[in-house]
Amino acid sequence: MVKKLLAVGLFFVGLACMSASAEDGSRLWLRQDIAAQATVCCKLQSATLDKAKEELRKSWQGGPVILELCYDAEHTALGKEGYTIKTLSDSVRLGASSEAGLLYAAYHLLRLQETGAALERLDIKEKPAYDLRILNHWDNPDGTVERGYAGHSLWEWNELPETLSPRYEAYARANASIGINGTVLNNVNASPNMLESGNLKKVKALADVFRPYGIKVYLSVNFASPAVLGGLPNADPLDEGVFEWWKGKVKEIYSLIPDFGGFLVKANSEGQPGPCDYGRTHADGANMLARALKPYGGLVMWRAFVYNPTEHDRAKQAYAEFKPLDGTFLDNVIVQVKNGPIDFQPREPYSPLFTAMPHTSLMAELQITQEYLGHSNHLVFLAPMWKEFFGYVRPESLRAVAGVSNIGNEANWCGHDFAQANWYAFGRLAWNPRMSSEDIAEEWLKQTFADDSSFVCPMKKMMLESHEAAVSYMMPLGLHHIFAWNHHYGPEPWCEVEGARPDWLPSYYHQAGKDGIGFDRSSRTGSGATAQYPDSLARVFDNPQTCPDEFLLWFHHLPWDFKMKDGRTLWDALCCKYEDGLQTARKMQAVWTEMKPYVDAERYGRVAERLDIQVNDAVWWKDACLLYFQTFSGMKLPAGMEKPKHKLKDLKKVKLPISNYERPAREMLP
Amino acid sequence: MVKKLLAVGLFFVGLACMSASAEDGSRLWLRQDIAAQATVCCKLQSATLDKAKEELRKSWQGGPVILELCYDAEHTALGKEGYTIKTLSDSVRLGASSEAGLLYAAYHLLRLQETGAALERLDIKEKPAYDLRILNHWDNPDGTVERGYAGHSLWEWNELPETLSPRYEAYARANASIGINGTVLNNVNASPNMLESGNLKKVKALADVFRPYGIKVYLSVNFASPAVLGGLPNADPLDEGVFEWWKGKVKEIYSLIPDFGGFLVKANSEGQPGPCDYGRTHADGANMLARALKPYGGLVMWRAFVYNPTEHDRAKQAYAEFKPLDGTFLDNVIVQVKNGPIDFQPREPYSPLFTAMPHTSLMAELQITQEYLGHSNHLVFLAPMWKEFFGYVRPESLRAVAGVSNIGNEANWCGHDFAQANWYAFGRLAWNPRMSSEDIAEEWLKQTFADDSSFVCPMKKMMLESHEAAVSYMMPLGLHHIFAWNHHYGPEPWCEVEGARPDWLPSYYHQAGKDGIGFDRSSRTGSGATAQYPDSLARVFDNPQTCPDEFLLWFHHLPWDFKMKDGRTLWDALCCKYEDGLQTARKMQAVWTEMKPYVDAERYGRVAERLDIQVNDAVWWKDACLLYFQTFSGMKLPAGMEKPKHKLKDLKKVKLPISNYERPAREMLP
Repeated sequence: MVKKLLAVGLFFVGLACMSASAEDGSRLWLRQDIAAQATVCCKLQSATLDKAKEELRKSWQGGPVILELCYDAEHTALGKEGYTIKTLSDSVRLGASSEAGLLYAAYHLLRLQETGAALERLDIKEKPAYDLRILNHWDNPDGTVERGYAGHSLWEWNELPETLSPRYEAYARANASIGINGTVLNNVNASPNMLESGNLKKVKALADVFRPYGIKVYLSVNFASPAVLGGLPNADPLDEGVFEWWKGKVKEIYSLIPDFGGFLVKANSEGQPGPCDYGRTHADGANMLARALKPYGGLVMWRAFVYNPTEHDRAKQAYAEFKPLDGTFLDNVIVQVKNGPIDFQPREPYSPLFTAMPHTSLMAELQITQEYLGHSNHLVFLAPMWKEFFGYVRPESLRAVAGVSNIGNEANWCGHDFAQANWYAFGRLAWNPRMSSEDIAEEWLKQTFADDSSFVCPMKKMMLESHEAAVSYMMPLGLHHIFAWNHHYGPEPWCEVEGARPDWLPSYYHQAGKDGIGFDRSSRTGSGATAQYPDSLARVFDNPQTCPDEFLLWFHHLPWDFKMKDGRTLWDALCCKYEDGLQTARKMQAVWTEMKPYVDAERYGRVAERLDIQVNDAVWWKDACLLYFQTFSGMKLPAGMEKPKHKLKDLKKVKLPISNYERPAREMLP
Repeated sequence: MVKKLLAVGLFFVGLACMSASAEDGSRLWLRQDIAAQATVCCKLQSATLDKAKEELRKSWQGGPVILELCYDAEHTALGKEGYTIKTLSDSVRLGASSEAGLLYAAYHLLRLQETGAALERLDIKEKPAYDLRILNHWDNPDGTVERGYAGHSLWEWNELPETLSPRYEAYARANASIGINGTVLNNVNASPNMLESGNLKKVKALADVFRPYGIKVYLSVNFASPAVLGGLPNADPLDEGVFEWWKGKVKEIYSLIPDFGGFLVKANSEGQPGPCDYGRTHADGANMLARALKPYGGLVMWRAFVYNPTEHDRAKQAYAEFKPLDGTFLDNVIVQVKNGPIDFQPREPYSPLFTAMPHTSLMAELQITQEYLGHSNHLVFLAPMWKEFFGYVRPESLRAVAGVSNIGNEANWCGHDFAQANWYAFGRLAWNPRMSSEDIAEEWLKQTFADDSSFVCPMKKMMLESHEAAVSYMMPLGLHHIFAWNHHYGPEPWCEVEGARPDWLPSYYHQAGKDGIGFDRSSRTGSGATAQYPDSLARVFDNPQTCPDEFLLWFHHLPWDFKMKDGRTLWDALCCKYEDGLQTARKMQAVWTEMKPYVDAERYGRVAERLDIQVNDAVWWKDACLLYFQTFSGMKLPAGMEKPKHKLKDLKKVKLPISNYERPAREMLP
């Protein structure tokens, strides 16, 4: 008895120590007790099933669990990754027609336990909305991560393939727990060297770690690889030699990685090479690669993110280039389209390509990393933004979903402890885009922090409001891309860079002047981007009286005294949005202070420090934008607003000494 | 010289007297000087050309005007009512391929003069958007006007055909001046007696007066006429005897009125007889009448305003009944659809039938009379409401436009002097739906009152804001049909009438309860009315996060603490809307007071008196709705609002002793 008590005592001390020393956020949302010793029955054995069994054995606190591969009509109807969970008289049965399905079922069951769900009469059927739920890493071979704000790349290319960091498996496990089943390891601005034989062996090593977790690896490829790497005279997709080079390279890859997923390609976009260099179309390029991959079941994900510094509205260009190609892509090509027509702005209307290519497989590219949303300094829960996208774009119209990863090698994976919630939310929505933001936030909070309503309720509210707040203090009413040059962190609506492409300058997007503000994309007087939407929606966007407020200045250039639906002037409405955003940020800070009793000191401190930066930045954004726009509007700030803290001339001097790859530290900020 | 001065003196005295005694509003927007004695040249003579010449001769103050019938390519391309106006070296030439076109050109030229336009270098081409621009009178043979608030019917049936009131021609002239070219003389709830031979002679007398002004007459017909009037055993549209009866009746009409326009039919709607009484469809009924009218070039305007007290959402019923009939109507049938799916509410989304019947000629039925907008007590300029409709429904998708008239036999035609502006706006928009509300208001104000910017600018603003204000103080955020039983004037959201059809009771529409407010028409949890809209728009309406605020409670039932886009609760937003509406009404009253120097005492007084009622009613609406809804929400009114002036229990006792046909007097109101 004494011994047992002692053991229990030691166990708790052990947990407590681990919790204290380990509260670096590295455990993500996977914090279940690992001493449960549950009974798990499964007739079969395999790498994947072993993972499922191990997870349950360690953490399931209920009765026996039976894992069964089932090939009946019910389970085959759920596809190769679907599953059932059913409470029997004295056990729980997980059924699926694949091992991956059983692994997902195991994570589902544990999630129910960890979120305090009723477990007595489970009768669950699940089937993912998409067969392909994929992360895009913008990781470079040199260890940097483009638009990554959580340290360096997780992949230690120098040590691979010999040394396997334990984080590789932890990464795979975290992804599997939320249903992610594919990962593109390297940046879309791809180095041709990625396809060198030595590097492919490193890729193979990662693929071997990920495979038991149901995760396939993919690579971004540089379209000029046959020339740069292979020494061919060109990379023309209609050149037989080029095709042969790719065939050989694909064969080499599959000899190493038999379940290799395929290629992701950024071509003829922002300086990357592509088929257009040879007078060929995007379809010519994609189809050539698709033919090389086809025998192995590989896919081509071909990005539609293209634009050029022409006189044409940037928001219209991808549509103009890709819509004519509808129906010409082979069936193992998926065209990957960013959610909005510009580039991951705090808020965009959906890209009109999603409703313009009925004869083409499309996938959405969402951005998990907060390139335009305060890097890893701001708490911005992205599920509501993605739900807004799925509000306009029918989930069934897509074949897959990709998310640009926010993962790096920092201990807590994502830099901001709450940025983990965006990784989590992406996985959950890729599995089921009909899940509510609220349910996702609640699941994540309970698993990551505490299942205590005094914590979960206010924090859920904070998370749900955070995206709208960020839009409000940065770019409300449809404003977009008024960031400082290059780093996309702070405000610089006045930004001028000599010789710069006009479509990389804020003034191209805000068009502020004495006469008003906003980008006229209406069909009568503007660029006509509205006409790229289906007729009934185009009409709504086209008319400032019906255009939703959140897209007003995206589609219209309006005078400062334009009358909003609520009777205020545009200027007043703009000011109030900035003020609302700031005040919500202040409220977030206040709420977090009250959460102190519920959170360990480490995470409390890290988040508090960042909320401080977020509030500071909200003031900065508000002052910079309103003081600058006021030079055109000539109108007063409405009564009751916080007075500006900065002077415009001081803010104009701010230059953050950071690159693509860094989040700014507190000291750098105004 | 003395004589001449005397004459001038007398002339001014005469004008002054006329102005003083006649400032009863009867001259509408047609107040041009009538002593101009212009030179007008026209080689031809006809009743219509005589009208054109007379108008110009009396009022044109510039050089000679030449009226020319032109059959060249330019003019034939402008259709049978289009025209050109061109300044030549020493004259102005009006050209058209029809006499009506020249008459319209004459009114256009005079309008330019009266609104102070530059007249030096005119080069105008005009072509109406619709061939049919028609008023619907809901006038009964007994002289009452259903939903008419300007006295009795203009048509003196007892005196016709012998006695022709001078107002008939004045009516035709006013219509022609704004391009209206058709009039349905009688109520859609039509008396079969209208088709009696004696009555047809009266109709002929009116048609003869209207003809020179380019206006055709039409009649509403009762579908049971062959039985009720003709003594046939039934009115089955597939019964050959019934068809023969109609053929005979049509022949009789055309023998009297060779340019008779056709029939307007309300069938199987609110108790009216129709083809469904015999198991036939609306198309069977419409086509039978169309075959009878076809040899004479007559039209059938068949109303789609149908609904029944079933469990189905009233807003969905017209679509459900008519969409399946798309493509089955003969080519001289036009299906006449009310702008919204319910019934002329202060604001409605457009009727989904407008985007659901591509193979059917459709026309919009707009309501000029303010049945649901304060009768002739409230100043509500309707152009913005109609422009909103044309924002969603492509003007080119319609074949015609009809407006339910607000004209009666009161001296000023429309009861409220500003209700004239709605008659005017209807005509202008039926001619050109792309005209802005602002331009229409400005034209009307300048012609009707004074071309003085100190008057025109504030009044234009007042007019443009008035519809939104009325929506706000009556039924904001998509609320609808919460009127008192029958008279549709004041608020009665609590209305209960024993044995009443549920779909005629406010609670059917507002669905207020402890859990929230609004009619759930979403596709997942509600009636699915959203799915009747084109896909991309349906998705916007279907999601409370994307649904425009102005339709929020039309499409959704939401909790009182639902979070609006601006962060307020639904309850707060609702309260603020009522408050905004009231405050705008107060502002209108204040602006009008400042307009006193610019307006004759008579019109000033009449309008001031009505604005007083309008403000009183806005308080009444606000108090009634908010105090009633507060019994469910249990929430406080937001700070800063006007305190309620009434008690809910007192307001519940208010019963206006008025009918369909009356506007309430000041003394009746709370």
